[in-house]
Amino acid sequence: MTGTRLDRWHGAYSRRATGMTASEIRALFAVASRPEVVSLAGGMPTLDALPLDEVGAIVRRCVEESAATALQYGSGQGDVLAQEQIADVMTTVGSDVDPDDVVVTTGSQHALDLLVRVMVDPGDVVVVESPSYVGALGVLRSYEAAVRHVATDEAGVVPDALTELVARERAAGRQVKALYVVPHHQNPSGVTTSAARRDELVDVCRRLGLLLVEDDPYALLGFDSEPLASLHSRDTDGVVYLGSFSKTFAPGLRVGWAVAPPALRAKLVLAAEASVLCPSAFSQRVVATYLRGSDWRAHVKVLRGLYRERRDALLGALARHLPDAHVTRPDGGFFTWVRLPDGLDTAAMLPRAVAARVAYVPGTAFHADGGGAAFARLSFCYPPPDRIVEGVRRLATVVAAEQELVATFGASPTGVPRVPAGDADRPATDTA
Amino acid sequence: MTGTRLDRWHGAYSRRATGMTASEIRALFAVASRPEVVSLAGGMPTLDALPLDEVGAIVRRCVEESAATALQYGSGQGDVLAQEQIADVMTTVGSDVDPDDVVVTTGSQHALDLLVRVMVDPGDVVVVESPSYVGALGVLRSYEAAVRHVATDEAGVVPDALTELVARERAAGRQVKALYVVPHHQNPSGVTTSAARRDELVDVCRRLGLLLVEDDPYALLGFDSEPLASLHSRDTDGVVYLGSFSKTFAPGLRVGWAVAPPALRAKLVLAAEASVLCPSAFSQRVVATYLRGSDWRAHVKVLRGLYRERRDALLGALARHLPDAHVTRPDGGFFTWVRLPDGLDTAAMLPRAVAARVAYVPGTAFHADGGGAAFARLSFCYPPPDRIVEGVRRLATVVAAEQELVATFGASPTGVPRVPAGDADRPATDTA
Repeated sequence: MTGTRLDRWHGAYSRRATGMTASEIRALFAVASRPEVVSLAGGMPTLDALPLDEVGAIVRRCVEESAATALQYGSGQGDVLAQEQIADVMTTVGSDVDPDDVVVTTGSQHALDLLVRVMVDPGDVVVVESPSYVGALGVLRSYEAAVRHVATDEAGVVPDALTELVARERAAGRQVKALYVVPHHQNPSGVTTSAARRDELVDVCRRLGLLLVEDDPYALLGFDSEPLASLHSRDTDGVVYLGSFSKTFAPGLRVGWAVAPPALRAKLVLAAEASVLCPSAFSQRVVATYLRGSDWRAHVKVLRGLYRERRDALLGALARHLPDAHVTRPDGGFFTWVRLPDGLDTAAMLPRAVAARVAYVPGTAFHADGGGAAFARLSFCYPPPDRIVEGVRRLATVVAAEQELVATFGASPTGVPRVPAGDADRPATDTA
Repeated sequence: MTGTRLDRWHGAYSRRATGMTASEIRALFAVASRPEVVSLAGGMPTLDALPLDEVGAIVRRCVEESAATALQYGSGQGDVLAQEQIADVMTTVGSDVDPDDVVVTTGSQHALDLLVRVMVDPGDVVVVESPSYVGALGVLRSYEAAVRHVATDEAGVVPDALTELVARERAAGRQVKALYVVPHHQNPSGVTTSAARRDELVDVCRRLGLLLVEDDPYALLGFDSEPLASLHSRDTDGVVYLGSFSKTFAPGLRVGWAVAPPALRAKLVLAAEASVLCPSAFSQRVVATYLRGSDWRAHVKVLRGLYRERRDALLGALARHLPDAHVTRPDGGFFTWVRLPDGLDTAAMLPRAVAARVAYVPGTAFHADGGGAAFARLSFCYPPPDRIVEGVRRLATVVAAEQELVATFGASPTGVPRVPAGDADRPATDTA
């Protein structure tokens, strides 16, 4: 697309720009917005439970009573009212932070962007879970990091595998900078890093000199239990904690945060100023006012019940319609991680799924190394239960047709039914 | 600060992080917020003229009527309603753009950040005006660009100087990627690039293969005339236009935009997704609703009158109290650029000015090469006229004392009165 003769700037782009490729997530947003498609793809939270009258009154009050600060430029590190409320939220994961330790950001994605900017030179290794969050892979790629997946099991990253991987990379002369994890209800696997494993990971990272990046947007969305104590609470100097209000309040405001050791925090603030001058004072004021004046814990409790019901609908439908698929059973968050029967290639199958009016994210999106083709992320966060069930029903039809293809024509060497070259890489919007 | 033994991550930061230094702007925000200081430093717009009842009603309506989109994740490129309104605003500078050409960003600073990210490798040269916007220098530094200042006169960048500079840099083996300009009421000099000069610059940049970056937040804030036709309107394939609602509506919402040629625009969107996933859907909806339903042109007219009055107050006070200073006479925008008598060093003098309860930005902030010490940027955007006059009165007292020092002890070799080493680099907040 960008290499045509029509582009006067072809050849002038930065090296890092060549690593930026069309995001499947972006394409899938477009698919998800069509009413006829059941999207099990997106990570959009439901807004059904949001008290709109209350939020409407809050935003109006923020204009009428606080315009001089809420509509003005603010500090690059964030507003003190937001910092205070965030410090309060951090107690829910056992972290005792001073409000001044908090850097408020334009969503937690931006916190990760700033962190990678100040920590990672091109070619530096960042270790991520296998699979890992697609948005993190995008940031890392955009700074030319060398991404390495480490083995995980049902308790999170396997410490010995981490030690071996880091030794191998260092023996090859590479700088290994950080381990990036989503420890609660991981995106995409749904796995929660256990308490014991958290202790082990903190120890291993300290020993190896790796910065531990704890991306924790789903901490409060456990269905049956309270959140575990954060990695951050176990080593405040060794862990950068990233938080978000996108899952528990509203993503449209773009408010997230980072908590980092002081010197690193100072660098994050400088990077934030270069990037956006300051986060939105208005969004921060709205979030702080909501947290201070509303019963947000009760709202989170409602969300938990809502998402639990949707998870149950998804798992029930999968058991009924796709009994041969291997499915994780998440105890919180938004996602299940599914291995389809016969190891069907989920990227190759996606265009046909979208034609059958159901969308998911193929497992390859969560791997920087081309892996994951047998897996799909199915999210249960956005459609209501009956739509989820209908989506799985449609998916099962597609899978059955795909299995028939494989039985008739055989699978390609990678387990992929033979399809025209290129199909597997095409974003869903281009093919539907 | 970050190099102490207490920082476990000292030595682990990226190379680009070492180029990020404490922003004088950030420090000055803190100074400006103290009521006893007259800040002629900040670039904060006045919010006095904002129709708060109307804006309050708009934000409430955006929640109550549009929550499903306004509080949700959106497209990485921005919301179509905002794109449409921005395309309409672009007609004021003679640019005919399709809404789909617009990338909505988290303020125009973020647009510049994304642009530098996709265009500039470490060591690549970006040419900027002399002096240039401090925030642009910060972004360029954070991507390890080699910044070169080109000579300017009362009509903008001098084309021959640009040609010579680029030839010199290329002869030295460096990639020269772009020319960055603020063509209306420049920050900090107040100079507007003339219509004839715009044609010349577009031609020279096309001939040299330089991307022209047109940062135009003050376009609508001319006191005596309508904006000139944009550089973008003269070469839509060769110019990236950056716009902002921070000066004409409200910076607290963080809404800006970029208009770029298609292939480059696609890269900006990918970079935006990696950086923040998407801009705030809520802020975009508020801005779009305001632009569509309110008489924003009338509001801008009110702002022009307000800023004209403040400029006149500043220029009048300078003529009265600092008759020996050389002062630019801006016909719009927020800033005057002042050369103090005797070439006093404005960075060295700043702590004493803040002690005398007046703040400005020293000229060195607007130079990547250490130049500008004899200059100061005085802004007239934020304090009301009587405060501006009082600020200049205080400044004159400080200048007089400084001149006496120079007369008694002599100036340092750089024209700077001898002060303890280090003082000149200290942000104002640390010294007051």
